[in-house]
Amino acid sequence: MNPIDQLKKELKTVAQIRGATSVLHWDQETYMPPGSGLARADQIAVLESLAHEHLVGPAVRDPLGELVDLDSGHLKQELPEEDARLVEEIWRDYHLAAALPKAFVEEYAQVTARGQQVWAKARKENKFSDFVPHLKKIVELKYREIGYLGEKDTPYDTLLDQFEPGMTSAHITRLFDELKTGLVPMVQAIAHSGVDTHTDLLHQTYDVDKQWAFGERVLKDMGFDFNCGRQDRSAHPFTTEFHPTDVRITTRIKPDDFLYCFSSTIHEGGHALYEQGLDPEWYGTPFAQAISYGIHESQSRMWENLVALSKPFWTHYYPLLQETFPENLGSVPLEHFYSAINTVTPSLIRTEADEMTYNLHVMLRYEVERMVINDHFPVDELPELWNNKMEEYLGLRPPTDADGVLQDVHWSMGAFGYFPTYALGNLYNIIIYERVKQDIPDLEERISRGDLLVLLQWLREHVHRIGRRKKALELIESMAGGPLTSQPFLKYLKNKYQELYPL
Amino acid sequence: MNPIDQLKKELKTVAQIRGATSVLHWDQETYMPPGSGLARADQIAVLESLAHEHLVGPAVRDPLGELVDLDSGHLKQELPEEDARLVEEIWRDYHLAAALPKAFVEEYAQVTARGQQVWAKARKENKFSDFVPHLKKIVELKYREIGYLGEKDTPYDTLLDQFEPGMTSAHITRLFDELKTGLVPMVQAIAHSGVDTHTDLLHQTYDVDKQWAFGERVLKDMGFDFNCGRQDRSAHPFTTEFHPTDVRITTRIKPDDFLYCFSSTIHEGGHALYEQGLDPEWYGTPFAQAISYGIHESQSRMWENLVALSKPFWTHYYPLLQETFPENLGSVPLEHFYSAINTVTPSLIRTEADEMTYNLHVMLRYEVERMVINDHFPVDELPELWNNKMEEYLGLRPPTDADGVLQDVHWSMGAFGYFPTYALGNLYNIIIYERVKQDIPDLEERISRGDLLVLLQWLREHVHRIGRRKKALELIESMAGGPLTSQPFLKYLKNKYQELYPL
Repeated sequence: MNPIDQLKKELKTVAQIRGATSVLHWDQETYMPPGSGLARADQIAVLESLAHEHLVGPAVRDPLGELVDLDSGHLKQELPEEDARLVEEIWRDYHLAAALPKAFVEEYAQVTARGQQVWAKARKENKFSDFVPHLKKIVELKYREIGYLGEKDTPYDTLLDQFEPGMTSAHITRLFDELKTGLVPMVQAIAHSGVDTHTDLLHQTYDVDKQWAFGERVLKDMGFDFNCGRQDRSAHPFTTEFHPTDVRITTRIKPDDFLYCFSSTIHEGGHALYEQGLDPEWYGTPFAQAISYGIHESQSRMWENLVALSKPFWTHYYPLLQETFPENLGSVPLEHFYSAINTVTPSLIRTEADEMTYNLHVMLRYEVERMVINDHFPVDELPELWNNKMEEYLGLRPPTDADGVLQDVHWSMGAFGYFPTYALGNLYNIIIYERVKQDIPDLEERISRGDLLVLLQWLREHVHRIGRRKKALELIESMAGGPLTSQPFLKYLKNKYQELYPL
Repeated sequence: MNPIDQLKKELKTVAQIRGATSVLHWDQETYMPPGSGLARADQIAVLESLAHEHLVGPAVRDPLGELVDLDSGHLKQELPEEDARLVEEIWRDYHLAAALPKAFVEEYAQVTARGQQVWAKARKENKFSDFVPHLKKIVELKYREIGYLGEKDTPYDTLLDQFEPGMTSAHITRLFDELKTGLVPMVQAIAHSGVDTHTDLLHQTYDVDKQWAFGERVLKDMGFDFNCGRQDRSAHPFTTEFHPTDVRITTRIKPDDFLYCFSSTIHEGGHALYEQGLDPEWYGTPFAQAISYGIHESQSRMWENLVALSKPFWTHYYPLLQETFPENLGSVPLEHFYSAINTVTPSLIRTEADEMTYNLHVMLRYEVERMVINDHFPVDELPELWNNKMEEYLGLRPPTDADGVLQDVHWSMGAFGYFPTYALGNLYNIIIYERVKQDIPDLEERISRGDLLVLLQWLREHVHRIGRRKKALELIESMAGGPLTSQPFLKYLKNKYQELYPL
């Protein structure tokens, strides 16, 4: 077997073990009985370690070593362009994994699996102090990880690069500064506008089964394949894939908050369409993997915000929603509903934030985690730092840590460097969407007739099927026709929200 | 680390990988979207192969080789009795696994995972012919497996020994002959008795949610720990354990058949109590594993039949059941309900058979599979053979293969030699139960007051916590105070059913 075919075969095995690990994670968040947390954390750690061993062991190392210098990643021989690109990305994954000693990987898996459980309990009981010793351990592990992987521009950049390959914190800081400059005056103008956006409409009692069914109806229309996926409930919505033929999302539901469930369903649905659209032929290889976390987020945010908070979308779906909830919405005009779902209001919880203030939540986290990683900011002082920044950016001070620094799972998983990709997703998605509109001039008209598949088809071809054949910036800049800035996103917000608020 | 501690550590890893594999199986039967069958079969095969590799690789082989001769299993040194017993059982598992080449294990895992899917479809569509080529492949694999493991008294005995260590087909044939001699006249007398057992009572409409809740109420009273387990729905009820802290059962439900769900819940609950009762200290080792499939079945059948079809049990639960279903049972006397649930009537489906005719279903399968394995009986002629035997034993001829030879999943999983353990479970359970009654003379009185935990506590101490410290026959014969025969079971049936039928 030639080394590339051998790599494809062995990477498939790695993906299968990781897919199995994802089943364990999914089960942990959906159906696992509470008393089994410790055993599950150990089980997950064992599988992660097996996947790691397989990726850095001879099965992958030997054929890869025939093609590249394992230390530098330089090709040893001329290869056709596509093969060269594939090998480059495989080497990247191999190198990131091989740099970490086995004992470290095992410890990391165990500490973070346990960390998530401790975090969940601490959040529930609003006891940040219970989480501190675990978070300290995790941060120590991150320092060691950076040591193994080598520092990029700053220590934080090493972590960022894992989620958004090629992105630097210098670039992100520029983008966020630009974003802040544009956002803050808009958010302030809105906060002082006194506009009534009819938000009460969303807080009537919506039957949970009907909410569920309506969300799944839209998922189906978006092209989510229920033959190869499903939706369940969990405390925190997420998407996971075990294989392109088994992609699952979760959502949460409240009877008195229509968007709480619906937005999550559509958001995770957007992620899931990406995973369902990856090329099964290349399963296990970088060509069947999402480009980056930011690009992944662009897909979820596109469906959640650009589509499912838009007028064309609700032109089609509002009558259906009225039929589903005649007592709540039967006599409410679309305009009121539209302004209700697009209400901008500073709030405490990131995952419930509107599309304008959302990015301020992300910036805060970015600044905080950079201080932890680059400046060794003391972990036990995080609540104070967090609350001060919340006050500065959003004018709110969290009454409890559960509503503040404890609200996100990410750090408990060791996912430092992940947060900025949420805002990048917003910056990317508008660039991609503008490009779709150029290619399909009647896109919004079609959406207003309920044709969502036209968008999916375009995304399949231009994003999903690409896998990691392109890098994120490469893809986005080619679509933008120039460098990535925050301007297209700010322009989109201004255009949209000036119809609803005096901007 | 001394070799025994090393073995304990490495066997824990094997158990963790197998636990993960069980999660994949569980998910496959409960929540997996239909389009993911092939990918899941591959995933399971990969994990099974990893567990196998770990069990036969140096991590286990080296410390084990310090203690025993790996070929013969003979101890190389004197060990304390408990250690010697532990090493003996570890060697047994190692030897059974090491005898099989890796390529064979992978092929076996894949063929049987696929086989189950093909079987399920063939059963649904009532097309035995679709299953034949897969079943042929599986039987070929079993022949090869016997070749690797070495023939015992007969080829079939090699397979039987995997499920019921130490049991021989000669012994089973004797037990079954004895059983047949006792059963057939009773079944015939009942069939011709014309007794009305009020079976219509069970076929009213029972609200499925209330059925579910009632079953879980009893599970809870039995001592099933919902903090470390759960119940879900699946087409075919089963119990699976991922760890002693995560033991799951499934059941099925029909609105017009009360016992269909209830009996399955209690049956699987009995299995689950065994698994939840294994010693977590020894997790991964034979001391935290069930003695045999027959002993496992004795636990499920004890709760299902000896307890939950008994008068003492319903003395307590019938009023509660009447409260739950007042329209169905409010004015029905306990005696009618008791005779309805204890109706004996020949039927086509093993899993729905009453406790008397059940064993005839098992004997039939035992005879058929011995012919396949020992005499190379042609697989495509199985329906005819099956139907003839059904007519001979139960006086019924299955109208379709779905109700005949296709009804059980076992052969599609390669589980030849498994069926006899179902009847052994019945023979064992009455012996154990008689022993409980000797130790706790007021057992039935306590049960009639709803105290089920007294039984569980006894089983915990005398069965569950034993693990594989004893062999099945050793345990049973010590409880019986003599050799294992079918007489205690026949005596139990006679005593119970002569109250309901003229025997």
